[in-house]
Amino acid sequence: MSEADFIARLRAIATDPAARGLADDAAVLGDLVLTHDTIVEGVHFLPDDGPQDVAWKLVAVNLSDLAAKGATPVGVLLGYSLTGDENWNAEFAAGLESVLRRYGVALFGGDTVRVPGGAPRSFSLTAIGRASPDGVPARSGVRPGDQIWVSGTVGNAGVGLAMRLGEIDPNETCLAAYRRPQPQLTLGRALVPHVHAMMDVSDGLLIDADRMARASGCGMTLMMEAVPLSAALLAVRPDVLDTRLAAATAGDDYQLLFAADPGQAAAIRETGAGLGVALTPVGHAGVGEGLTLIHKAQRIALPERLGFTH
Amino acid sequence: MSEADFIARLRAIATDPAARGLADDAAVLGDLVLTHDTIVEGVHFLPDDGPQDVAWKLVAVNLSDLAAKGATPVGVLLGYSLTGDENWNAEFAAGLESVLRRYGVALFGGDTVRVPGGAPRSFSLTAIGRASPDGVPARSGVRPGDQIWVSGTVGNAGVGLAMRLGEIDPNETCLAAYRRPQPQLTLGRALVPHVHAMMDVSDGLLIDADRMARASGCGMTLMMEAVPLSAALLAVRPDVLDTRLAAATAGDDYQLLFAADPGQAAAIRETGAGLGVALTPVGHAGVGEGLTLIHKAQRIALPERLGFTH
Repeated sequence: MSEADFIARLRAIATDPAARGLADDAAVLGDLVLTHDTIVEGVHFLPDDGPQDVAWKLVAVNLSDLAAKGATPVGVLLGYSLTGDENWNAEFAAGLESVLRRYGVALFGGDTVRVPGGAPRSFSLTAIGRASPDGVPARSGVRPGDQIWVSGTVGNAGVGLAMRLGEIDPNETCLAAYRRPQPQLTLGRALVPHVHAMMDVSDGLLIDADRMARASGCGMTLMMEAVPLSAALLAVRPDVLDTRLAAATAGDDYQLLFAADPGQAAAIRETGAGLGVALTPVGHAGVGEGLTLIHKAQRIALPERLGFTH
Repeated sequence: MSEADFIARLRAIATDPAARGLADDAAVLGDLVLTHDTIVEGVHFLPDDGPQDVAWKLVAVNLSDLAAKGATPVGVLLGYSLTGDENWNAEFAAGLESVLRRYGVALFGGDTVRVPGGAPRSFSLTAIGRASPDGVPARSGVRPGDQIWVSGTVGNAGVGLAMRLGEIDPNETCLAAYRRPQPQLTLGRALVPHVHAMMDVSDGLLIDADRMARASGCGMTLMMEAVPLSAALLAVRPDVLDTRLAAATAGDDYQLLFAADPGQAAAIRETGAGLGVALTPVGHAGVGEGLTLIHKAQRIALPERLGFTH
């Protein structure tokens, strides 16, 4: 059974409405929103990433799923792989405390397991949030005609990873985006009344937009020249199409991607301005299927790789 | 930071009442009960255990935590390690479907991650249950003077593991106890009104009784001759103290250990009889600290190893 078949099988099992067909960032049980993500050494973080950063990332990527559902995090359950490296454990605990305090989230429970020597570290987290009284926007709610928006800028974390790997000279903004992603919790909550659909950009703008379009049964067109890039990224990369495609496929952005009726544009801009977050329209939804890319009024081919998978 | 220090640090972080000081089997958030357990190949299951059995065990050990809190399971979130072994994935999915259906539990969500080749398989699960209207018995509620009870029999799974390893001739009962643990959900719910404290016996009767006594700030005395052993176990082991100590330290029983006022004994026996489950008083709680063992009216030394740790 291939991975796609395995996931299809899980979807067939997950018939409860709370599961949202396993096609969303989180499950919705009454007024609670629940998400579970695992991060594995060598896959989601580098073996020599700092343990405080790993703890931060573990919590932040899960809180980002709650942010995408407009939910307010209340607590987490941790699955921790103990290794013999006592300093690593101490640093991880410090990082965990720091990220939980930063976002006002409780540690509810979990377990520690000892893994065989030499096995990669693996950590799992379940985050529990309280839904907004205005609802829980699905990934699948995009309607043809919607504007597609993204928060902040994309690509910083991808460049930060290249910096971490010594491929290019580092700058603080991009490194921080890789090391300490910031879940957009306040923004997510504020956007709930204005959006038809929302998700976080965890694996890359293009792959996540494609997922959102497919989940919604519509097509989506993105304008590459509109994709927001940071000054820090443009300080180390030329502003050419390849840079934009790299930024839109790099992943680890943890920005919010959302779809809204064009009539909501003023309210959305106002929401962003009130929170000091740039919100940028990057495309629109139409009838049809899948993703179409436009650059300076020309259709361009989709890159072979739309983003990070696992 | 040693494991004990690490856990102490997590406890210091987990100040929210929902966490129950990380000293219980589960967290309690409103009327929901939440638990998270990870199982690792080579630690919690054998590399050649059948994937259907591994799926069963992953779900059953988590549901057992809910059973110990008298909660009714509603759904789970799965963290799945994908490997290249497609047949394994298919068998795991079949086992998952079967155990979820058996206990009427929904798959709410989760994630799949690809692990580097050669890494041990590791699976995590968060199980969510609905609390009984009569409350959620804590591990820490034992009162001096309470009777201590255990459900069913202990030691079958430990003998089943020895059978799986080819150390002794197999019998179906003990093998099944190892391969397909049965969370005592109906019993747990029925016991809620009668108990002061309850937990499941996952790591061994002695270690779990010791944990319960310590969490409750009291002492506990167990009578080894009262520890219930199955006919299937006694068919392959002589009924001597060493057998009883082995059974009480082997773990993987997933029976319920509970403390109740002696005045509840008749109601408890009636509850067990109604469900066709043997419930056996195995000791009592007193003032003091930790565990005391008695065998045929003689105090005996605690074994060096009280049960399974990780």
